[in-house]
Amino acid sequence: MASDARLSDEAIAAGLAGLEGWSREGDAIAKAYTFPAYMDGITFVNGAAEAAEAADHHPDMAVGYKRVTVTLSTHSSGGISQKDLDLAAALNGLA
Amino acid sequence: MASDARLSDEAIAAGLAGLEGWSREGDAIAKAYTFPAYMDGITFVNGAAEAAEAADHHPDMAVGYKRVTVTLSTHSSGGISQKDLDLAAALNGLA
Repeated sequence: MASDARLSDEAIAAGLAGLEGWSREGDAIAKAYTFPAYMDGITFVNGAAEAAEAADHHPDMAVGYKRVTVTLSTHSSGGISQKDLDLAAALNGLA
Repeated sequence: MASDARLSDEAIAAGLAGLEGWSREGDAIAKAYTFPAYMDGITFVNGAAEAAEAADHHPDMAVGYKRVTVTLSTHSSGGISQKDLDLAAALNGLA
């Protein structure tokens, strides 16, 4: 399982370079996913929840109309860890 | 289908009196639902999404760990309508 240690700014920037649509927001990373239909967003939420349970790492998801904004942070380390980058990559594989 | 006309303050207060856990937040109504397990919250999101599609009225849902906060407003009328009160009642029936 990926480490939950807080990453350096350089490591975070390097990780984000490979994660389409994700950006840093302070001590978190975030992405707004958009969908052609409302229920497509709900399908994404279900896939994201399964990935979160598998990783034992849970995102904040803001579910709107045809739009789901995901925010990832590692609260136990007060910053962004490899767990966040790994889950972001998994979510990009779903959408 | 319920009207999307903006309700008076009195009508909103009367409606909320019958909706356990819901409160007014400006031009919206909101409730934080909590769950014993993460996936219980996701099950609720799915039920809420089905109710939203049936009503053609879509909430904002903030999905966290064992917690889903729902916010309802009728943007087309710039306030709170009977559609919001009806969907809130439907969601209370799910949780």
